[in-house]
Amino acid sequence: MADTVVLLHWQNRGMEFVAGREGGPTVIIDGNGKAGPSPMVTFLIGLAGCTASDILEIAGKMRVTFGGFEVRAEGDRWPEPPRRYTKIRLVYRVAGVNEGDREKIRRAVQLSQEKYCSAIHSIRQDIELTSDVEFE
Amino acid sequence: MADTVVLLHWQNRGMEFVAGREGGPTVIIDGNGKAGPSPMVTFLIGLAGCTASDILEIAGKMRVTFGGFEVRAEGDRWPEPPRRYTKIRLVYRVAGVNEGDREKIRRAVQLSQEKYCSAIHSIRQDIELTSDVEFE
Repeated sequence: MADTVVLLHWQNRGMEFVAGREGGPTVIIDGNGKAGPSPMVTFLIGLAGCTASDILEIAGKMRVTFGGFEVRAEGDRWPEPPRRYTKIRLVYRVAGVNEGDREKIRRAVQLSQEKYCSAIHSIRQDIELTSDVEFE
Repeated sequence: MADTVVLLHWQNRGMEFVAGREGGPTVIIDGNGKAGPSPMVTFLIGLAGCTASDILEIAGKMRVTFGGFEVRAEGDRWPEPPRRYTKIRLVYRVAGVNEGDREKIRRAVQLSQEKYCSAIHSIRQDIELTSDVEFE
């Protein structure tokens, strides 16, 4: 039995799929990016969500709280097929963090990227990954 | 300006995020895999959706029609952090295809994997990728 099993079921129109872990919550994705995010957007959401969840978990363990949290992921792609990602920039935007806790957030980002993030470590190693942490 | 920009907005509870391309359709993803697919499930959905969309597009150009289409993706992961994918198996299940068109579907799968799929070409090159095509 595999660790993670997902199923995509074509909706018999356009490039729309209902997708999810078997028996788990589903999302709609759309090869044309209209009825739902496109596959390459979904792939990047998975990556950004992985590191974002790490930050929440690590910050929780460090007892750092915040009022708002957003991750923006910007991907550059190869101009010809396959239009793979060549460069990914992650911007972590955190609101309402005490001055004294900001270094902990930066450390959480570093820990996620270097040690914990399963998605970041699943992408091509020659994809140039950069990041920024912004406090509001 | 980056080619693909996504935004994940934390919902201020658990590990739930609303995510999507800026100004595009959104999905809910959940680090705990309850309110929505988990990030690593989402990442695999993106990959499977990418190759699935290729098949629809290539089959369309080959004028091959089918009654149903599903992609199952099975991922094995490293047992320790980072729990990256080590092995991915893709099963393409196609229903209602003429005997004479089955070879074309197999060819479409091969073209997607070798040449077109932007997500497959964005993952680590040492991830062992296997696939099967099943006709119903």
